[in-house]
Amino acid sequence: MKLERILGFYPKKIAIYQQALTHKSHVSDKNKVIKSNERLEFLGDSVLNSVISHYLFSKYPFIDEGQLTQLRSRFVSRETLNTVALKIGLGELIEKKQEDKSVSILGNALEAIIGAIYVDKGYDETKKFVYKQLIGVHIDSDKIVANETNFKSRVIEWCQKNKIDFEFITDESEKNQRSFFSVTLLVGGNEKGKGEAFSKKKAEQHAAQQFYEAIKEEL
Amino acid sequence: MKLERILGFYPKKIAIYQQALTHKSHVSDKNKVIKSNERLEFLGDSVLNSVISHYLFSKYPFIDEGQLTQLRSRFVSRETLNTVALKIGLGELIEKKQEDKSVSILGNALEAIIGAIYVDKGYDETKKFVYKQLIGVHIDSDKIVANETNFKSRVIEWCQKNKIDFEFITDESEKNQRSFFSVTLLVGGNEKGKGEAFSKKKAEQHAAQQFYEAIKEEL
Repeated sequence: MKLERILGFYPKKIAIYQQALTHKSHVSDKNKVIKSNERLEFLGDSVLNSVISHYLFSKYPFIDEGQLTQLRSRFVSRETLNTVALKIGLGELIEKKQEDKSVSILGNALEAIIGAIYVDKGYDETKKFVYKQLIGVHIDSDKIVANETNFKSRVIEWCQKNKIDFEFITDESEKNQRSFFSVTLLVGGNEKGKGEAFSKKKAEQHAAQQFYEAIKEEL
Repeated sequence: MKLERILGFYPKKIAIYQQALTHKSHVSDKNKVIKSNERLEFLGDSVLNSVISHYLFSKYPFIDEGQLTQLRSRFVSRETLNTVALKIGLGELIEKKQEDKSVSILGNALEAIIGAIYVDKGYDETKKFVYKQLIGVHIDSDKIVANETNFKSRVIEWCQKNKIDFEFITDESEKNQRSFFSVTLLVGGNEKGKGEAFSKKKAEQHAAQQFYEAIKEEL
């Protein structure tokens, strides 16, 4: 059976999975609460959050709670959940009105399935499912972590958000017969950082990091 | 030892509880991430959410996901967590700068303790702790559920939020030698509900419920 292949185990309480796969458009209003997957989605969402939080907490012991929160949001975003749901073939199993084509039905059903596993098998089995189907397979958290500390992009992001002009001014010279870069970061016309290195990229990162320290609380 | 009494079991990984009880004001900036309780608070917050979600999901099978979300927010509010932390005596154990008197330090430390239990003992022991210290003891969810379906107050809330005039017009008469009430609800000058009962309160609720059905999606 298709569902067992997705789950990776034999479900005990079949009815709860059927409910997880029932979109509200498939049931009459009167029965919506007890027959649609919305309550299970509520449950699955919070269990998923807990599993992902612990995964990130353990994997990245030196990352602060703000960055952990940002990272987690990538794992549990609508986009990620929709993609995963589609990839594991959940779409074919969902009971819904034909005309309802919203993609978030997929991600919501995935959350509901996570809720159903929790009800049927408990926390540890749910954790296994999340690890197998979401973590690692679909999101490269190491890459995200590396990007999070790309100071230049964080500074640009902040300036754009706050609609403040910025400029990285590069001065190239020679030192020990190699190109040497001196980068000045101007924000709103004022010097906010200065970096020097044999690589332009590194000099920019150094300059950006100085300003990043001042704004990181707001990011 | 005081901590054991609060936990209700013997902790294995003592260091993690010490960290949970260390406010950032007690550590130097350089060590903040690895020594303060903020990362554990991140973890505990999501585990707590998961435990409470499952509790409410099981206890109230006929309540929709919107109401479940509202209910959960009462259990995990800053106010509730601060109160519980104070009551179980967590305050005396927290390491922080003397001058830092913010009460939310308490609730945050409670979340961090929940995170520490999860790391030390796993999900089931954490669930036990949350049930013992938070659920039932400090929040009467049945009472909240009863209030949530106080249609009159929900209608008033909605009208105030949307700045629309409303009026409950009561007409008292006699029926079988008892007072009989007929209540009409006007919203923005238009009749939106009508209720009749031998109690004024009940008649109001009936009238309010009719309008409530129309606006509940927005509440």
